[in-house]
Amino acid sequence: MTTMLKAQYNERGPVPQAVIAAVPFERPTLSQGQALVAVLAAPINPSDVLTLTGQYGILPPLPAVGGSEGVGRVVELGPDTQGPAIGQTVLLPAGSGTWATHLVAPAARLIPLPNGADPQQLAMLTVNPPTASLLLSDFATLQPGDWVIQNSANSGVGSYVVQLAKLRGLKTVNIVRRESAIAGVLVQGGDVVLVDGDDLAERVKAATAGAPIKLGIDAVGGKATMRLAGTLTESAVVVNYGALSGEPCIVSPRELVFRDVSLKGFWLARWFRTTPQPQQFALLTELAGLIAAGKLSTPIQASYDVAQIKEAVAAAAAGERQGKILIVPAQA
Amino acid sequence: MTTMLKAQYNERGPVPQAVIAAVPFERPTLSQGQALVAVLAAPINPSDVLTLTGQYGILPPLPAVGGSEGVGRVVELGPDTQGPAIGQTVLLPAGSGTWATHLVAPAARLIPLPNGADPQQLAMLTVNPPTASLLLSDFATLQPGDWVIQNSANSGVGSYVVQLAKLRGLKTVNIVRRESAIAGVLVQGGDVVLVDGDDLAERVKAATAGAPIKLGIDAVGGKATMRLAGTLTESAVVVNYGALSGEPCIVSPRELVFRDVSLKGFWLARWFRTTPQPQQFALLTELAGLIAAGKLSTPIQASYDVAQIKEAVAAAAAGERQGKILIVPAQA
Repeated sequence: MTTMLKAQYNERGPVPQAVIAAVPFERPTLSQGQALVAVLAAPINPSDVLTLTGQYGILPPLPAVGGSEGVGRVVELGPDTQGPAIGQTVLLPAGSGTWATHLVAPAARLIPLPNGADPQQLAMLTVNPPTASLLLSDFATLQPGDWVIQNSANSGVGSYVVQLAKLRGLKTVNIVRRESAIAGVLVQGGDVVLVDGDDLAERVKAATAGAPIKLGIDAVGGKATMRLAGTLTESAVVVNYGALSGEPCIVSPRELVFRDVSLKGFWLARWFRTTPQPQQFALLTELAGLIAAGKLSTPIQASYDVAQIKEAVAAAAAGERQGKILIVPAQA
Repeated sequence: MTTMLKAQYNERGPVPQAVIAAVPFERPTLSQGQALVAVLAAPINPSDVLTLTGQYGILPPLPAVGGSEGVGRVVELGPDTQGPAIGQTVLLPAGSGTWATHLVAPAARLIPLPNGADPQQLAMLTVNPPTASLLLSDFATLQPGDWVIQNSANSGVGSYVVQLAKLRGLKTVNIVRRESAIAGVLVQGGDVVLVDGDDLAERVKAATAGAPIKLGIDAVGGKATMRLAGTLTESAVVVNYGALSGEPCIVSPRELVFRDVSLKGFWLARWFRTTPQPQQFALLTELAGLIAAGKLSTPIQASYDVAQIKEAVAAAAAGERQGKILIVPAQA
């Protein structure tokens, strides 16, 4: 019998790789309605790291298995259980503890995905692509030809923003924090890529011929938020969805008061909580189609087995990366 | 003939009282459509000080006369000019350079005010009361019994917020920066008055029995903005209209992302620019009625003659005050 492994943590702490470890478990006996799924791939998102350190907005009860999304293959169905066929590739339910070789899930919550598509790209469907899509659609009324600006453009969400913007006919100004990140964003299709700095507004103006920018997408916080706000047109909005700098957002009253720029936040977990199921399903289906068709993807820096969970989390928590970190269980 | 004086500045600079001085001028000869008005009272608002230092959102061409609002008495009308009668108390046009013994204004733009009402309170009609009124009405849907929270509660706008909130059946939590400011805000009618500090959210919760607060009004900036945001209910809004701390607004992504609190700005000058004249007139008329009836007032710390403009501006720019600084020209 296969050794099954899951990446479990019993406490939270400032060093995320210190609190999590791979632990073996017995092959579970399924009840009616359950399915046993072999995990094919599951990413480590920034929100997963914040969940380990205790800084995220919702924290599961302890002990918990890490990982909030991923893709698997159905291995077994419980007695008298309807569900995807054995062998079917499926999307794992959000928040189900996906850093594992196997997990048990309600069969009814497994969404079938194309068996032929790249499971590693599909494994990142639930979190980053809908975030990018909703950031682009829910905070400003944009027309084809309009510009949007984002920082952390070389992040996972950043790469989806670039690609989805292009698919919608929008142009992107992309801000990164180091020269070495520029090339990757250009490859993704970014129209303009600039390194952040105090003269950002002037350089953006020059690069866009002064086109008005109505939407700024901020994942950095600190003074980066203020620099982003400074590039926007009057009455524009900055949407923050992360704080990679570790600092709170800073915005000058000059932007808020004299230029009517506003600052909002976006949290995908809230969207899932407050949005009707059919609307959620429609968005995920649209995005899964784009991923399966190869129109939407994000760079992967490295993949790790569940047994290597500490190295994997350490790599994900490190600052400079070229792409996402994935848990890809060694095939049994 | 009376010596006429105006407080003029030929340059802007970091020390506001250094750039402005009282200068005499000849009694002007009026053209058709013009009126000569003797100024009865004109306040020094924070925005006036920022105009002298060059930090405000619109700056008049130089040289300029200071003062953006006030009340006067009609002294003379130009040839063949329709307008308020000689001796009528009138509201001076916004931005007309009111720190003067006399000024020339288009007769058609002078709004008659009750001759019997206190001209010093009426002199503050145009800037602070509409700001307070619109901060309370334009950013959140509030019902009688709802709470709002503001900092800088002992400022001019702050005192109008307290009084207008009470008139509308709202309750106020008022934040001040020193113990000595508490009593004055309680006299104005503040329901709760607290000194700012790191445990603000807990103390507000205790003082309001945990009532949800949907609107925070911020004139301080810096971490005071974040502390204010922390007292609000989910999906609430912070409106910033000033930066008395001299620091940009700081808001944690925790508030923005996980609690859906948003940060907006309010600028009265924009409201005047974008709002139809009849709607502006209706608001000013309503507020003038409340002031004339003694239902709306703000403490005055001291008044100065135009000749004392440097002392007056220095007093207005100083941090700790008990009320507004007014220019009240010595009666000719």
